[in-house]
Amino acid sequence: MQIVIIGSGNVAYHLAKAFTKKKIPLAQIFGRNEEDLNKIAQELNIPHSTSKLEDADLYIICVSDGSVEDVSQLITKTDCIVAHTSGSLPKEILIGAYRKSSFYPLQTFSKSKELDYSKIPFFIETENPADKNLLIKLASQISENVMESSHEKRKYIHLTAVFACNFVNHLFARAKEISDDQKIPFDYFLPLIDETVKKIHEIEPKSAQTGPAVRNDTRVLELHEQLLKDESLEIYKTMNHSIKNMYEL
Amino acid sequence: MQIVIIGSGNVAYHLAKAFTKKKIPLAQIFGRNEEDLNKIAQELNIPHSTSKLEDADLYIICVSDGSVEDVSQLITKTDCIVAHTSGSLPKEILIGAYRKSSFYPLQTFSKSKELDYSKIPFFIETENPADKNLLIKLASQISENVMESSHEKRKYIHLTAVFACNFVNHLFARAKEISDDQKIPFDYFLPLIDETVKKIHEIEPKSAQTGPAVRNDTRVLELHEQLLKDESLEIYKTMNHSIKNMYEL
Repeated sequence: MQIVIIGSGNVAYHLAKAFTKKKIPLAQIFGRNEEDLNKIAQELNIPHSTSKLEDADLYIICVSDGSVEDVSQLITKTDCIVAHTSGSLPKEILIGAYRKSSFYPLQTFSKSKELDYSKIPFFIETENPADKNLLIKLASQISENVMESSHEKRKYIHLTAVFACNFVNHLFARAKEISDDQKIPFDYFLPLIDETVKKIHEIEPKSAQTGPAVRNDTRVLELHEQLLKDESLEIYKTMNHSIKNMYEL
Repeated sequence: MQIVIIGSGNVAYHLAKAFTKKKIPLAQIFGRNEEDLNKIAQELNIPHSTSKLEDADLYIICVSDGSVEDVSQLITKTDCIVAHTSGSLPKEILIGAYRKSSFYPLQTFSKSKELDYSKIPFFIETENPADKNLLIKLASQISENVMESSHEKRKYIHLTAVFACNFVNHLFARAKEISDDQKIPFDYFLPLIDETVKKIHEIEPKSAQTGPAVRNDTRVLELHEQLLKDESLEIYKTMNHSIKNMYEL
């Protein structure tokens, strides 16, 4: 099967790398950004182009959600599968006479960070039932965790990931802002953060909750509100309100 | 030095365990809850009592913030150090004619979870300058990361920890609620969560931010709001507002 990856960002890079590591040949990596594309193509030894899309059996579109529709129209071939990698888009966003599908890896990708691909869950949806097995088989070569998933379900998977990853990272950013202001090194908090995450591998997050809100410690809650302002104060109030509501305090 | 630990909860257990592992003898573990106290005393082979407090040079109070003041009054000895382990209380909360201090371990403790004590930062504050070196020396036997810290600074350390640990755990709990509702196993998200945390060991959290809010992806943000309600919707709006504000979007 001839496979082309479209895109030169983090998802394109990591997916191309995962395939290459498993000796699954890529016919081409295609994208707009010549510099990024060159880097990936050289590192992974893949043919690349910014202008002429290679003929293939499978195109995997790894571009930002807003560009998927436009990019999908570059593919004029009809006897092929085209898959996007977005958590929130339906496969119908793809405009063309090919077989539409979705190939969604649930992970946060940074170019500079090595990843254990085998643990990344992949969620597959296809128009054509025969393509489903094909894509599941392909994804299973790089990951131990491949499932079929409707667009409806994928939307909720993406939403859950926003809470569990994007918002968590933003809390780290706001926490660092508070500690930076006080000249407290953020490194002090890394063992605590690591432990917070290790815990939920063993205990339900609801049972693992600690802190002043779940103890309904009004004295500390009021003290903390006095130390905060603007967005961090808003987050503080919203999170405590939600914690109290969850534990019916 | 004769050391007594007061309390039978998670902090008391883990502190007693850390001392025992380093062969620092404890004269007694004292507390109200006989069952919990028996368990700790048996596991770690420490004398224990629910009624008679042993004479000691150092008492470490490991009880909930709301009980510290009351418990501190049980200590009638004057020629000794009494330390609490709270992040948010001043050492002056301790009522007695002894030397007041604070011995604050920055960690989230669960009884059932093994911990690497050497990585836990300890923050020390004492009334008496000579006691400072004594407590720093003691803490340094169980941790590589021991610092002096005023109550003022400790308040901000605790506040930062609430964002980086307590609120993060609550996001996991709300994320699990969303995925449970859709019968999506929460285990799918563990590799993503692990990676989110691994990232901030290498990259500043502000630079590691991903997701629809930082891309200002209005389509996805609106879609997600339609899928949410009540506390989770409030969290969604507050976090996105704060993300947009941080990146000036």
